[in-house]
Amino acid sequence: MTSAPTFAQLGEDALIARILARIPQDGTVVVGPGDDAAVTDAPGRLVSSADMLVEGEDFLDGWLDPHRLGVKAAAQNLADVRAMGARPTGLLLSLAAPGDTPASFVDGLVDGLVEEAGRAGAVVLGGDLSDARQIVIAVTALGSLPAQSAPLTRNAARPGHTVWLGGRTGWAAAGLDALFAGAEVVETPAAEAGEIPAAEAARLPAAAAPDALLATAIEAQRAPRPAYEAVDALREALDGQPAALIDLSDGLGSDAGRLARASGVDLDLDSAALDALADDLVPVAHRVRALEEAAEADTDEPVADAASQEESAARARARRWVLTGGEDHGFLATVPEGVHPIGWRLVGRVRPVSTVPSVLIDGVPVGDSGFVAVDPDGGFRHFSGSGE
Amino acid sequence: MTSAPTFAQLGEDALIARILARIPQDGTVVVGPGDDAAVTDAPGRLVSSADMLVEGEDFLDGWLDPHRLGVKAAAQNLADVRAMGARPTGLLLSLAAPGDTPASFVDGLVDGLVEEAGRAGAVVLGGDLSDARQIVIAVTALGSLPAQSAPLTRNAARPGHTVWLGGRTGWAAAGLDALFAGAEVVETPAAEAGEIPAAEAARLPAAAAPDALLATAIEAQRAPRPAYEAVDALREALDGQPAALIDLSDGLGSDAGRLARASGVDLDLDSAALDALADDLVPVAHRVRALEEAAEADTDEPVADAASQEESAARARARRWVLTGGEDHGFLATVPEGVHPIGWRLVGRVRPVSTVPSVLIDGVPVGDSGFVAVDPDGGFRHFSGSGE
Repeated sequence: MTSAPTFAQLGEDALIARILARIPQDGTVVVGPGDDAAVTDAPGRLVSSADMLVEGEDFLDGWLDPHRLGVKAAAQNLADVRAMGARPTGLLLSLAAPGDTPASFVDGLVDGLVEEAGRAGAVVLGGDLSDARQIVIAVTALGSLPAQSAPLTRNAARPGHTVWLGGRTGWAAAGLDALFAGAEVVETPAAEAGEIPAAEAARLPAAAAPDALLATAIEAQRAPRPAYEAVDALREALDGQPAALIDLSDGLGSDAGRLARASGVDLDLDSAALDALADDLVPVAHRVRALEEAAEADTDEPVADAASQEESAARARARRWVLTGGEDHGFLATVPEGVHPIGWRLVGRVRPVSTVPSVLIDGVPVGDSGFVAVDPDGGFRHFSGSGE
Repeated sequence: MTSAPTFAQLGEDALIARILARIPQDGTVVVGPGDDAAVTDAPGRLVSSADMLVEGEDFLDGWLDPHRLGVKAAAQNLADVRAMGARPTGLLLSLAAPGDTPASFVDGLVDGLVEEAGRAGAVVLGGDLSDARQIVIAVTALGSLPAQSAPLTRNAARPGHTVWLGGRTGWAAAGLDALFAGAEVVETPAAEAGEIPAAEAARLPAAAAPDALLATAIEAQRAPRPAYEAVDALREALDGQPAALIDLSDGLGSDAGRLARASGVDLDLDSAALDALADDLVPVAHRVRALEEAAEADTDEPVADAASQEESAARARARRWVLTGGEDHGFLATVPEGVHPIGWRLVGRVRPVSTVPSVLIDGVPVGDSGFVAVDPDGGFRHFSGSGE
C-alpha cells in the first residue's frame, strides 16, 4: 500500500468503508449508508431532484479541489429542493471515476458534500461507486414539505406580482471568465471561504477591494454557497400566500424565461435594479479584462482602450454576467403586491402576456432594450442544439 | 432536422421535452418532472437508494437496446428499495451521454424505466441530462415504509433463522457468459419478454427447451425482472416478526457474506438446495460450452471431452453461476423458525459464528466444501483492488 492509493488499488469495498467513515448521521436517519437503501423519518411531502457534474463539461481538472467539487455538487441539488420552498433532508451520491483516481479524491468530495448538506440542514444518506473514463458526479437531493403545504412552483407567477432576487446572480459567470483569463486560484480552504455569507460578500465595497471581489467571483464559480436561508425569509413574508419560485442555475434571463412560459406571463425586469446588481461586478470585469490583456500581450501588442471605452466595456460585461450567468443558484421569486421578503432585492414586476410569454426590461423585449447586446435566453445548456 | 437527430442536434430543452412527454404521472405526484424538483405525497418513512450503469463497464454497446437498458437501470434500483421491505414510489434519472447519441436512445431508455417502475408500483419523477464521453446512467429509487415500521436490514440475521431465496440467482451470469461466447441476441421486444414471470421461466422443463433456457438467461442479463412481489409474500409470512433481507446484486456468496458480517453470524447454505438451483442452469452451461467450442473451432482443432467430463464441467459451471453470479436481483432473507414465505426456496440456516462471520456450505467453509472451486466471495466489484 503506497501513501496515495488509487481507486483501483483500494477496491470498491475499502473505498466504500472509507466514505462511510466520513459521513455523520442524525436522529432522522433510521438506516444510514451501507445497507441496500437508506431509511429516514421524513414527515410530510417528499421533494426530490437530481443533477450531475461531468469532468470536462461542468468542471475542469485543476480548477476544483475535490472538497469544492463536493460543495458545488451538493449546492446545485440542495438549491433545487429549496426552490420548491422545501427543507432539504438528504443527499445521495453516485460517483463514476477512472481507476487511477487517488482515493483521497473521495475524502475531499464527501467532506464537501457533507459540509454543504449540513449548511442546508441535510445529511448524506448513501450512494454508489463505479468505474468510468471520466469523473461523473450524480447527486440526488431529497427534502420535505409539511403535509398539505403547497410547493412554490414556477407556474404560479401572476400579473401584478413583484419580482425578487434572493442571493446572487452573475458572480459564478464572472469567476468562470476570470479562470479562463488565467486568474490565479487562491488556495484558501473551501470551508473557510464558505464562511463568508453570500449576501455579505456581495456587499463588499467595490472600489476598496477589487482583488477581494475577484476572489469572491472565483469562489462563487468553484464552490457556490446558495443563500438557502433566503427561502425561509420568503416563506415568512408570504405567510401562506401563493408565489412562484425558481432556482437560477442557467442564468437570470434564461430561468426568468422558464418562469414566464410556465406561468403564461411577461416578466418585466427593471434596468436600474439590474444595474445595481452589475455595479459590484464592474470592478471584476476590469480585473478580468486586465488579465486577458496580459495574456494577449504574450503574443500581440496590447491596444490600450480609452478610459471611457474601458468603462463602458466593463459595464456591458457585468450586465451580461448578471443577465446570462448561471451556477450562482440564487433564487427568483414572484410574490403578491405588499409582500416584502427580508434580504431579497426587488428587480421587476409580472405583467399580463402581450404576445408570447417573455422576459422584458423596462417594458420592452430584452433584445430591444439596449441593456445587453446578447441573447438574454443564452444561459448554459448541455447539447446546444437547435431544438425541434 | 434529419429523421434520426442526435442529442447535440436536438439540444437539452427539446430532449427534456421529449422525455417529459413519455412519462405518465399518478395521483401521488403533486409536482412532476419539469420544475426545480418533484413533489410527491409519500406517507411514512422514506427509503432511498442510488445505483449506476456505465457503458463499457456495466454494459456493452450492442448487447442492450435502450429499452432493456432502462429496464435494467430501474430494476437494480427498485430491488434495493424492495430489499428494505419497502414499497417503491419513484425513480430519478441522471443521464450523461455523448452528443452524437441518437435522440431515440432516450425514448427507449425512458420507456424501459417507466415500464419497470410501473411493474414495481413506482413512477419516474425527474432527472438531469449532461454531455459526457461515455454513457452513464445514474438512477435514484425512492420508496416508503409505513411510519414506525421497521425496515428489513441485513444486520438482523440470528442463529436459528432459516435462509430463503426469493427470485433467481445465476441466470444473469449465465446470460453474460452466453453473450461473451457469441450467443445470438434474440430481438424480441423487451416488453414481451418481460411478460414471462421470472419464477415461471425458471420452471421451464430443462430437457425440453435448452434454447428457451438460454434465451431466458440472456434476457435475465439484459433486462432483469426482479421478483418484487416476493417481498410482499415475505412480509405476509413474517406477520411483523423481525427478519434480515438483502438484494442479490453481486452474487449469492458475496451478498450472503455481507449479510453474515453485518449480523455477526455464520450463514450455512445447503448443497442440495444450491444444486437444485443449479439444475436448471446445467443445460445452459452445455449450450454455452458448445458456443465456446464453435468459436474455438475457428482457430483450433476442437477437443471432444468425454460425456461424463462434459456433464461434470457443466455442473461445476452452473454451481459457480448460482453462487457467484450477480445482477439477477433476487432476494436473500433469514427468518425465524416456523416462517415459510410462499414462493421462496429454503436454502440454508443461520448458525452462531464459529471464527469470523462466514458463508458455509453444509457446515464447512465454502472453500473446503468441494461445492465450487472458486472464491465464493468473488462476486462483481468495481475497482478490483486489494483493500486496506
